[in-house]
Amino acid sequence: MALLVQKYGGTSVGSVERIEHVASKVAAARERGHRIVVVVSAMSGETDRLLKLAKSIDPRPDPRELDQLLATGEQVTIALLAMALEKRGVPARSYLGFQVPIHTDRAYGKARITRIETRNLLADCEAGAVPVVAGFQGVDEDGNLTTLGRGGSDTTGVALAAALKADECQIYTDVDGVYTTDPRVEPRARRLDRITFEEMLELASLGSKVLQIRSVEFAGKYKVPLRVLSTFQEGPGTLITLEERDVEEPLISGIAFNRDEAQLTVAGVPDRPGIAAAILGPIGEANIEVDMIVQNVGADGTTDFTFTVHRNDYERAMEISRKVAEDLQAKAVRSALDIVKVSLVGVGMRSHAGIAAKMFKTLASEGINIRMISTSEIKISVVIEDKYLELAVRALHKAFGLAGGGGA
Amino acid sequence: MALLVQKYGGTSVGSVERIEHVASKVAAARERGHRIVVVVSAMSGETDRLLKLAKSIDPRPDPRELDQLLATGEQVTIALLAMALEKRGVPARSYLGFQVPIHTDRAYGKARITRIETRNLLADCEAGAVPVVAGFQGVDEDGNLTTLGRGGSDTTGVALAAALKADECQIYTDVDGVYTTDPRVEPRARRLDRITFEEMLELASLGSKVLQIRSVEFAGKYKVPLRVLSTFQEGPGTLITLEERDVEEPLISGIAFNRDEAQLTVAGVPDRPGIAAAILGPIGEANIEVDMIVQNVGADGTTDFTFTVHRNDYERAMEISRKVAEDLQAKAVRSALDIVKVSLVGVGMRSHAGIAAKMFKTLASEGINIRMISTSEIKISVVIEDKYLELAVRALHKAFGLAGGGGA
Repeated sequence: MALLVQKYGGTSVGSVERIEHVASKVAAARERGHRIVVVVSAMSGETDRLLKLAKSIDPRPDPRELDQLLATGEQVTIALLAMALEKRGVPARSYLGFQVPIHTDRAYGKARITRIETRNLLADCEAGAVPVVAGFQGVDEDGNLTTLGRGGSDTTGVALAAALKADECQIYTDVDGVYTTDPRVEPRARRLDRITFEEMLELASLGSKVLQIRSVEFAGKYKVPLRVLSTFQEGPGTLITLEERDVEEPLISGIAFNRDEAQLTVAGVPDRPGIAAAILGPIGEANIEVDMIVQNVGADGTTDFTFTVHRNDYERAMEISRKVAEDLQAKAVRSALDIVKVSLVGVGMRSHAGIAAKMFKTLASEGINIRMISTSEIKISVVIEDKYLELAVRALHKAFGLAGGGGA
Repeated sequence: MALLVQKYGGTSVGSVERIEHVASKVAAARERGHRIVVVVSAMSGETDRLLKLAKSIDPRPDPRELDQLLATGEQVTIALLAMALEKRGVPARSYLGFQVPIHTDRAYGKARITRIETRNLLADCEAGAVPVVAGFQGVDEDGNLTTLGRGGSDTTGVALAAALKADECQIYTDVDGVYTTDPRVEPRARRLDRITFEEMLELASLGSKVLQIRSVEFAGKYKVPLRVLSTFQEGPGTLITLEERDVEEPLISGIAFNRDEAQLTVAGVPDRPGIAAAILGPIGEANIEVDMIVQNVGADGTTDFTFTVHRNDYERAMEISRKVAEDLQAKAVRSALDIVKVSLVGVGMRSHAGIAAKMFKTLASEGINIRMISTSEIKISVVIEDKYLELAVRALHKAFGLAGGGGA
C-alpha cells in the first residue's frame, strides 16, 4: 500500500465533468489500496480571468492583494473536488495553504515553501480520508496568503510528497509522459519510461514544457520519485528518477529545441582580458537573460563574441551591443533571428566519447550548417538556421535510435 | 474624527467600475478625516454562480466544502477593492475572516460569530490605512472556513462595528434609506431620517428587505448605530437608533406588506383545551413556519382556528390540516391564496390608543374587508384580499400623514 501524492493541473480540472473524472480516478486509486493526497490547480483559464480583473484596476496591482485574489482559483477547485469525492462515498477534506499549513516566505507572487506541517494530512490518510490540497498557495508567518508563481502547483505537489515521504509524486497533465522529442516535429517520437532528473532539467529548460522546472529541481533535491502521466488516458507515464541509467539503455534520452532565441555577435573585438565582462555586464544590468555564450579567438589578434537572448529582448540587446561595440572599437555587430537551438540530452554521453562527433556528422550529411555550439556534461546544443529544424530533429532522432520498436 | 464601518453589498461592488466607485467613496470619507473599516460582499451574481457549480456536482454538497467554496466570492472583492484604494494613494489591506480573525462556531452555512480580534484592524487605522474585510465569512477554532448565511455581510459589518466600538455602521446598498412604505406601491412614500431598531425589525420581517434581520437584532443588542445609505446617490440615508422617538414625531413609521402568505382555517373545531397544539404541532414537525395565528370562539361550542404560512408551504400545510381536521372532527378546512398582509408599524402606537380603530375605519371607508387581525406592541397587521393592496397602502399612508412635505 503506497502513499501517493497526485497532482492534477488546470486542464485536468477545467470543467465540472473533468473534476468528476478526476474524482473517479482518485477513488479508483484508493480502491486499489493506496493512500492518496491530492493537489489541484485552478480550473484552466481561471487564473488568467482573475489576473485580468486585477489588471483592469491597476496594471501593477499590489503584490499582496494580487496573491489574495489569485489564491481563490485553487480554493474553488479543492472544494468542488472534495464534494465530488464525497458523492462517490470517498471521505475527503479540502485544505487551503494556511489550513495544511504550507509555510512560505513573504515573496508575494514567487514565494518559497519553508515548512509543511503534515499532521492533519497524515491523520486524514490514517482515517481513510483523502486530503485535497490547494496548489500554488501558502501562508507566511503573519497569516498573509502567498502564491508560488506560475506552475506552482507542481511545486506544491513535490513539496508535499517530500514532506509526507510519499512513495511517488504523480503529476497528471494532458500529455502521457516525456517524449524523445516533440511528436509534432518527429511523429516517431517515443514516450520514455524513465528519465533522470538532470536530463529532465535539461529537457524542461530547453523547451519541453511538461513540468515546471522548479518542481523538478525540488524533486531532485529531496529525492522524490516523480511521475508524469495523462489524466485522460491510461498508461504508466514517465518516471523521473535519481537512479543512474543501465549501461544497456540508450545513451541519449531526447532532443529538445527552442525557437525563441536570437543570436548576437560582437565581431572583431581586440582580444584582451575583460571582453566578456565588458559585453555581458551591460546586458545583465538591463535584466536581459543570456543563454548560450561562445567566444572564438581570431587570427588577427581580435575575437568574435557570440551570445543568444530571448527574442523578446532582441531589440534592447542589439542597442546595448552596438554601444558596447563602439566603446570596444569592435569591427561590427551581427545578429540573426532566423535561428533555432537544437539540443541532444542524455546522461549517457558523460561516459561515451564520440556523441558530439556523431551529432555534427549527422547534421553535416544533411547539409545543415552549424552556427554555434555549446556543451555541458549531459547535453550538446547547436544553433542552426530555423528552416532546418524538422530535418535536424528527425535526422538526429534516427541516428541515435530514439524511435521505439512498436512506437508510442 | 469618527471611526466608521462601511459595508458595501453585492450590487455596490458588482463590476470593476463599481468597485472603483466604492474606492472613491471610501477615499473621500477618509479625506474628510474619518477612520474607515470597509466590509464587502461578493460581486453580485458570484455567490449564485458558485452555488450552481457546487449543485452541478452534488445537489446536497458537503457543508464544509460548500463554505470553503462560497468564501472565495468575498475574497475576490476585498483584493480588488484594496488594489483600487492603493491606486488612489490610500494605504489599504484586505482581510479574510481568518486573518482578522473573525471566530465563529462550526455551524457551516449559518455560523454565528463568537469573537472578533480587533488588534490588526485598529493598528491599520492607527497607521492611516484602510482595512478591507471579507463579509459573510469566519473561521472556527480548528481553522475551518465558515459562512454566516445569506446576507451575512451585514452581520459582519455590525459585528465589526460592535467589536471596534465604531461610531456608526453604514450599510451601503442600492436604496437610499428606509421608506414609509414601498415607493412602487405609494409614490408619495417618504424616506425616514430615523427609525428605531424595533420598528426596523418589524419592517424587515414584514418584507421591507433593506437589511438582513439578524444584523438588525445584532445592532440592537450591541447598541451599534446603524445607517442605511445608497452607494449610488449622495444623502444622509436612514439612521436606525436605540433612542426613543420624540412625542412630537409621527406615531407611525411605516406600512409594510407581504404577498407571500397563504391563509388556512380549520373551522368548526370542538372548543376544548389543546386545539392549537393539536393543529400547529404537526405543522411545526413538518418544518413549516407559521406567521399569524388567530382563534375565535364560535357560538355553538366550536371554534375557528386560522393561521398563515408561506405560499411555498401551502400544499403541505393543507394536506396536514385536512388530516388533523379529520382527527379533530372539525367541520371544514378553508383556505385562501389571494390574500395579502398589510402592517402598520410604529413605536408611537404603544402610548396612543385609537391607532387600531383609525386603521380599521380607514380600510372600511374604502370598502376593504378585513379577514384577519393580529397585533403586537408596535404593529397592527391585517389580512385583506390581495386586489386591495395598493388601495389599502395608499389610504393608510395618507390617513397617518406619512407623506413628506417636500417628499423624498
